[in-house]
Amino acid sequence: MKKIINNPKDVVSEFLNGFTNANSHIVKRIANFDIIITNDVPQNQVNLISGGGSGHEPSHAGYVGSGMLTAAVCGAMFTSPTPDQILEAIKQSNNGLGVLLIVKNYTGDLLNFEIAKELAADLNISVEYILVNDDIAVIDSTWTLGRRGVAGTILVHKILGGLAKNGLSLQQLKEVGTKLVKNIKTIGVALSGATLPEVGKPGFELKDNEIEYGVGIHGEPGYRRQRLVSSKELAKELVGKLDLEFKFKSNENYGILVNGLGSTPLMEQYIFLNDVIKLLSNYKVNILFNKVGNYMTAIDMAGISLTLIKLQDNWLKMLNEEVNVVSW
Amino acid sequence: MKKIINNPKDVVSEFLNGFTNANSHIVKRIANFDIIITNDVPQNQVNLISGGGSGHEPSHAGYVGSGMLTAAVCGAMFTSPTPDQILEAIKQSNNGLGVLLIVKNYTGDLLNFEIAKELAADLNISVEYILVNDDIAVIDSTWTLGRRGVAGTILVHKILGGLAKNGLSLQQLKEVGTKLVKNIKTIGVALSGATLPEVGKPGFELKDNEIEYGVGIHGEPGYRRQRLVSSKELAKELVGKLDLEFKFKSNENYGILVNGLGSTPLMEQYIFLNDVIKLLSNYKVNILFNKVGNYMTAIDMAGISLTLIKLQDNWLKMLNEEVNVVSW
Repeated sequence: MKKIINNPKDVVSEFLNGFTNANSHIVKRIANFDIIITNDVPQNQVNLISGGGSGHEPSHAGYVGSGMLTAAVCGAMFTSPTPDQILEAIKQSNNGLGVLLIVKNYTGDLLNFEIAKELAADLNISVEYILVNDDIAVIDSTWTLGRRGVAGTILVHKILGGLAKNGLSLQQLKEVGTKLVKNIKTIGVALSGATLPEVGKPGFELKDNEIEYGVGIHGEPGYRRQRLVSSKELAKELVGKLDLEFKFKSNENYGILVNGLGSTPLMEQYIFLNDVIKLLSNYKVNILFNKVGNYMTAIDMAGISLTLIKLQDNWLKMLNEEVNVVSW
Repeated sequence: MKKIINNPKDVVSEFLNGFTNANSHIVKRIANFDIIITNDVPQNQVNLISGGGSGHEPSHAGYVGSGMLTAAVCGAMFTSPTPDQILEAIKQSNNGLGVLLIVKNYTGDLLNFEIAKELAADLNISVEYILVNDDIAVIDSTWTLGRRGVAGTILVHKILGGLAKNGLSLQQLKEVGTKLVKNIKTIGVALSGATLPEVGKPGFELKDNEIEYGVGIHGEPGYRRQRLVSSKELAKELVGKLDLEFKFKSNENYGILVNGLGSTPLMEQYIFLNDVIKLLSNYKVNILFNKVGNYMTAIDMAGISLTLIKLQDNWLKMLNEEVNVVSW
């Protein structure tokens, strides 16, 4: 294992210190809870909280700030945050207008966010949650019933963050969020496994010329291993899977997120995007939004995911709104 | 070699297509010249051009837009752009107020940018250039006389870009730029080599437990190979080298750029920053600016570079100015 770290047990804490120090004009850290919270908790809107295991940087700390999340709750590496961490974030974000939790669908995360919601109810804080399950690769997985939540989550942060800032109520945000997650789908391909610092070797190994479609962001098994193919062929496979879900029709409006999983260069991500755009043009759908980069990573995994969002209502406007966060 | 590409000969062209498609609200591509240029070439200020070999994405295309570069000239992988490419960028950027070239110090780049400057003079276009040589690791290198230009270049883009927008003349920008490059120093460490798509294997190999200090962004040799050490130890080595240059004194003002070389996760970059900040606090210098991420990469190299800028005049203000580019 070759990593720029100190004691593997300290990676999350040291990351959060570095992150907070570098970005103190936007965020602060709540001591002992591994929570990153905006310096100015909005007082006139519903506040949004997300979080999950660490190892997916810049998710979710990088999306804390005006127009997106009020707080991010950071678990240990690939491990759900605890209910008391989440409850503390809720308490710190509560202004009487309610708190919306954005939860990626993993059994541990769902359980702990639900417990925190119940604990908050005891304190008379209104809390709802949105469960993001955008990964279409497999149904049920190592740590999940149903579909996993992956990179599409950051589009949920952005759109609901914009709507919250624009004054939607907790119930309205819950309704839009429920509709939104049905219109965001993701699928990925891994070229390598991810190495947890405390484990010291990749969670799975691929041969020199081998890839795996549909791997999860914690290295959960995908749906097929095969030899490495060209970017064009990768795009064909992933766009084909997304077409089975969306059933593309001409003149529909979509947005694209190409997400690097950690160690894949930006050049490759844009080459892949170029192939995706060509394929989608065959369906005559309109591509109105593009985003490319490392947004929901799996530590040092090589590979990419492709997210499409079927744009409706004012979602495109919300995607394009200005925000003041570190990593959007 | 495991890369998400098609024909290795097409990587630059396909990257530029993807990049332009995704970011057409900011930039366009000039056909046949591999130039990325802002959609709205400023008519009332000196325009800035940078460029160099490809493989350092998001440099330099990601810095084109209002407040930074007017155009980026993209050479083949790790290969200087040609004089005719650079000349075309100059012609397209010329508004009568002059054009400033920002050139990283490599023999090929310097030669070709100088030729383009001479050709532009024949067309009565005023051109000056700033040579960036921030890498303190070694003097003279595989493709360089003197010191190499590396990640500090993006701080030059940002500060001179802000000053150009604020109306400084070509001569004034040349003067500030000359002072600026003397106050920006960088040093890096590689955990792996970089693999050129047309070569198919890393330019150099390191053992499983080995690192090399001072490697260049094209894999040029550094100054020492040794076993992998902790982030704290890496920070001590690199900050120590920077101290030999800057000779830190208490109450001086600095900015930090921690730059990922391609495949190093953001978490590690922030852990490293955390250690750098601790060390610098011993010198009692003031850290007024921090930036962390993949800004000047070496394809898929693992490792980081540390840049310090000794802040003077209105440079901090220029670093914090709003810009409309893809990757700042």
